[in-house]
Amino acid sequence: MSWTQIAAAKKSQQLDRIPAEWLSNNLPPTEQPNVVDFPKKTTVLSALDLEITESEVATLLHNLASSKWSAVQVTTSFYKRAIVAQQLTNCLTEIFVDRALIRANELDAHLKNTGKVVGALHGLPISLKDQICIKGLESTMGYVSWIGQYAEKNAVLVDILESLGAVPFVKTNIPQTLMWPETFNHIFGRTSNPHNRSLTSGGSSGGEGALIALKGSPLGKFRWVGSDIGGSIRIPAGFCGVYGFRPSCGRVPYAGCVNSLEGQDSILSVLGPLCNTLDGIKTFFKAVLSEQPWIKDPLVIRKRWSEEEYKLTEHGNGEKLCFAIMWDNGVIEPHPPVRRGLQITKDALLAAGHRVIDWTPYKQAEITTITNSIWNSGANEDYKAAAAPTGEPVIASMGVLPEDTELLFRPTGSGISAFELWQIQKRKRALRQEYLKHWEDTVITTGTGRPVDAIISPMAPYTAPPHGMNKTAQYTMWCNMLDFPALVIPVSKVDQTLDVKQPRDKFYTKQDQENYEGYNPATYESAPISIQVVGRTVEEEAVIAMSEIIDDALRAGKAQL
Amino acid sequence: MSWTQIAAAKKSQQLDRIPAEWLSNNLPPTEQPNVVDFPKKTTVLSALDLEITESEVATLLHNLASSKWSAVQVTTSFYKRAIVAQQLTNCLTEIFVDRALIRANELDAHLKNTGKVVGALHGLPISLKDQICIKGLESTMGYVSWIGQYAEKNAVLVDILESLGAVPFVKTNIPQTLMWPETFNHIFGRTSNPHNRSLTSGGSSGGEGALIALKGSPLGKFRWVGSDIGGSIRIPAGFCGVYGFRPSCGRVPYAGCVNSLEGQDSILSVLGPLCNTLDGIKTFFKAVLSEQPWIKDPLVIRKRWSEEEYKLTEHGNGEKLCFAIMWDNGVIEPHPPVRRGLQITKDALLAAGHRVIDWTPYKQAEITTITNSIWNSGANEDYKAAAAPTGEPVIASMGVLPEDTELLFRPTGSGISAFELWQIQKRKRALRQEYLKHWEDTVITTGTGRPVDAIISPMAPYTAPPHGMNKTAQYTMWCNMLDFPALVIPVSKVDQTLDVKQPRDKFYTKQDQENYEGYNPATYESAPISIQVVGRTVEEEAVIAMSEIIDDALRAGKAQL
Repeated sequence: MSWTQIAAAKKSQQLDRIPAEWLSNNLPPTEQPNVVDFPKKTTVLSALDLEITESEVATLLHNLASSKWSAVQVTTSFYKRAIVAQQLTNCLTEIFVDRALIRANELDAHLKNTGKVVGALHGLPISLKDQICIKGLESTMGYVSWIGQYAEKNAVLVDILESLGAVPFVKTNIPQTLMWPETFNHIFGRTSNPHNRSLTSGGSSGGEGALIALKGSPLGKFRWVGSDIGGSIRIPAGFCGVYGFRPSCGRVPYAGCVNSLEGQDSILSVLGPLCNTLDGIKTFFKAVLSEQPWIKDPLVIRKRWSEEEYKLTEHGNGEKLCFAIMWDNGVIEPHPPVRRGLQITKDALLAAGHRVIDWTPYKQAEITTITNSIWNSGANEDYKAAAAPTGEPVIASMGVLPEDTELLFRPTGSGISAFELWQIQKRKRALRQEYLKHWEDTVITTGTGRPVDAIISPMAPYTAPPHGMNKTAQYTMWCNMLDFPALVIPVSKVDQTLDVKQPRDKFYTKQDQENYEGYNPATYESAPISIQVVGRTVEEEAVIAMSEIIDDALRAGKAQL
Repeated sequence: MSWTQIAAAKKSQQLDRIPAEWLSNNLPPTEQPNVVDFPKKTTVLSALDLEITESEVATLLHNLASSKWSAVQVTTSFYKRAIVAQQLTNCLTEIFVDRALIRANELDAHLKNTGKVVGALHGLPISLKDQICIKGLESTMGYVSWIGQYAEKNAVLVDILESLGAVPFVKTNIPQTLMWPETFNHIFGRTSNPHNRSLTSGGSSGGEGALIALKGSPLGKFRWVGSDIGGSIRIPAGFCGVYGFRPSCGRVPYAGCVNSLEGQDSILSVLGPLCNTLDGIKTFFKAVLSEQPWIKDPLVIRKRWSEEEYKLTEHGNGEKLCFAIMWDNGVIEPHPPVRRGLQITKDALLAAGHRVIDWTPYKQAEITTITNSIWNSGANEDYKAAAAPTGEPVIASMGVLPEDTELLFRPTGSGISAFELWQIQKRKRALRQEYLKHWEDTVITTGTGRPVDAIISPMAPYTAPPHGMNKTAQYTMWCNMLDFPALVIPVSKVDQTLDVKQPRDKFYTKQDQENYEGYNPATYESAPISIQVVGRTVEEEAVIAMSEIIDDALRAGKAQL
């Protein structure tokens, strides 16, 4: 079979695995951009399905533990809604209804027989990015060549989630290679943004972003897992209007996932949650750490959840914090809605009694260059080796038209030597040292006696752009190179009356000018506006706590309007 | 000038910096092997000098804080003794008496004027391995080409030690490149083992090892800093009969040191203490962590000293531990004295009520191969680039005769590509995962309900060998690849009557056979016998605590004899 035939067979098999009665037959027309509210209109979801899928995590866990709702019921409700999301945005890869329901049934039996829950996440359905291996299932990562490779064991994170009582129930779509901030591949196709389907859901966890956004309400509470090497959690979270957290390396176990650039030991991909609430982010993080992941994955740091750090003891106990906003990075000025999101955040924080100053960007362009150079040192060989068995092409564009071909995220030519790579990595380490000092040196400007508590930054220089137009990940990549934990918070949505184009005639770079010229409020209609909260390495607990403070301030600000 | 002239000028300058009155003129004859007791016989050291230099750290700090001894006095006493050590073993590189005494004088003035000590290490002299930069001084690392490069700032660790009140006072000798487990270079020459000067002091922190051993008494208490990428702390510590601790990556700040293979991000060099007592190891480690090194070095893990982990709460509170002894690694069987050291340890632990089982080696040969392959992927280019400016040769042998030339620790040929390096590093990560599982799986054999609490292993397959004969670092390197913290404890000394050669006719490898054939008890006379205590990644507190338990058991065992 040709690679196109192999891919088509797999896609067809995927459709076959969906129970026919879960397919909506009143779908909105393809040309309708915003489909976020459709789950409430489909005939597939019952009132109970809607109640369940829009419940908070705490409510779900409580009702599962008290047997008000069975795990089978909750899994079924979320599965049905995930299938609706699939029909709307094409966000899923592996679908395994029977297996998930068997697992849910076992949990119900355990609870009935013992009177006890299996663990802190008893009965909670969990979706997983395609690369996270589940024993017996494929993790194609969008490579046709990887079809038919069934995982021999679970990723460590799956083992941990299962020991906590969770129910893995779907895997979600990614770009082939994972190394592109949009979501498209030759097997499963393209994932769209549910807020505006002419826009990208971002990537590489674009399937997760779309799926979570389709919980319908911003208070739909659930938990999904993506990964982030250059923004792959934060870009889809920000573009789709949900929370997304990229922890530092070594807090969430990564072992047992498939990936691109494996063996690249310098700037690593990390797993983290995407969710409709911050509470879900914290619950995920605490639950995973409670299982001592360091005895299952040697790359995980032996460090428990620190309640002390969560209480912000090193940040004045969270009173009168000083945040610094990076309005732009000095390379590409963000579009008007992004700036408005930052301004809303600033106003809300000032109203809440905190201090807000400007962040001075530091060698942000060099950070992007160094990061790309490290990945690209062997990436071309890596992608070619992965695609070789079937002869499928390595995807060179995420555009919808053939002439969109752009090699933005594809290195050309051959790689470099190990010694040359070391020279780049040496510069990377120096930059990390310099950036830390740059941050520490802010102690003289904050008025708190401490350096800046957290940086607030755009997660991209635009809101979700049209398919094929997400041309840079530099607003997220800097946190990967510096290994800073970063949490994306949704703030608002594009509004054509507020987000008008302003005249501008000076530009940092050609890229900056192109980005400016490409802005047109109508194109971005309804796209979510998000920020990211950036802390220092292995400061996850504090970043979560400060994000809660920011989120509360934002919600208080909205209440006043 | 030729490189030989440049090197000779630097060596001559070093001698000029020693106050003439500190040079002993009753040195033992060059052919006398054991010089450990000479510091008590030199006319240079007064009774007070001897009292000070053989005091415990706690006593020193107490007498410094109470002004019984001034910092100037203590620094002078240790400096004089360090010069004696230099005359005996050639263990120093940078000597800077005036500067150290000015610093000590400032500390005395501060204490006098304020009534307060500067910090927890007030007035304590600290020696530093040559690569650890001190502002204004050279860190040649044995490269003639680096002479004249004066550090623009302190290494982060030096800043931290100074803020704690310590007095850096000498730098110590290393092999050119650091990447050889003996100590010789074209500038400063060779460092010998004070227990038997026909033997090597090990490397790369060989200057530290010899210097510390020459405190004279095993209770001489002091603290020095070395580094370890493949055993560079543990080999000199073990060969010279002192304690040496290789922490996991990311606990002790490394930033601001010079090094070989910079930018190699996969198996990193770490700094750690060598000392005549375990108490000194713990004091060093706690004091450094108390200064929050993570705000000064981005590679340091944000994790405070954990008193809970030190109390062994995850190891049954330290009662009835189960240790596993790796008698040999299945590649090279250790010499009889090494085996005796392990047996002494086993007997002592059994007598103390602990359990001792055998450790099953796991792919130890492959671990060595992978580790070497990662370092060697660009090492040749690295060494050549460093040596190029003056045309000095990259040292190819640590032997004392020209015909000793061996390329044991020098890769030949050119390096490999970044992509090829990634494939090796990918295998490394898998091996770490497998080894962790191998360890966790011991839970069924320990009888404690826990996996093995710590592994006890040789730190080399021999005690300190003759110069040029330290042919493998595989008994230390495995801990570097696996990032296991490992602490070397001195146990005994070679005794020709006890450590007789046993007949043997089966060998694991050719290397094993050569090692067996090379054993001759007389050659190794008086060489220290040491073990290493190996824990799991980022388990420094527990490794220190378990080492204290082992050390106490050993001392109790000696008391019974």
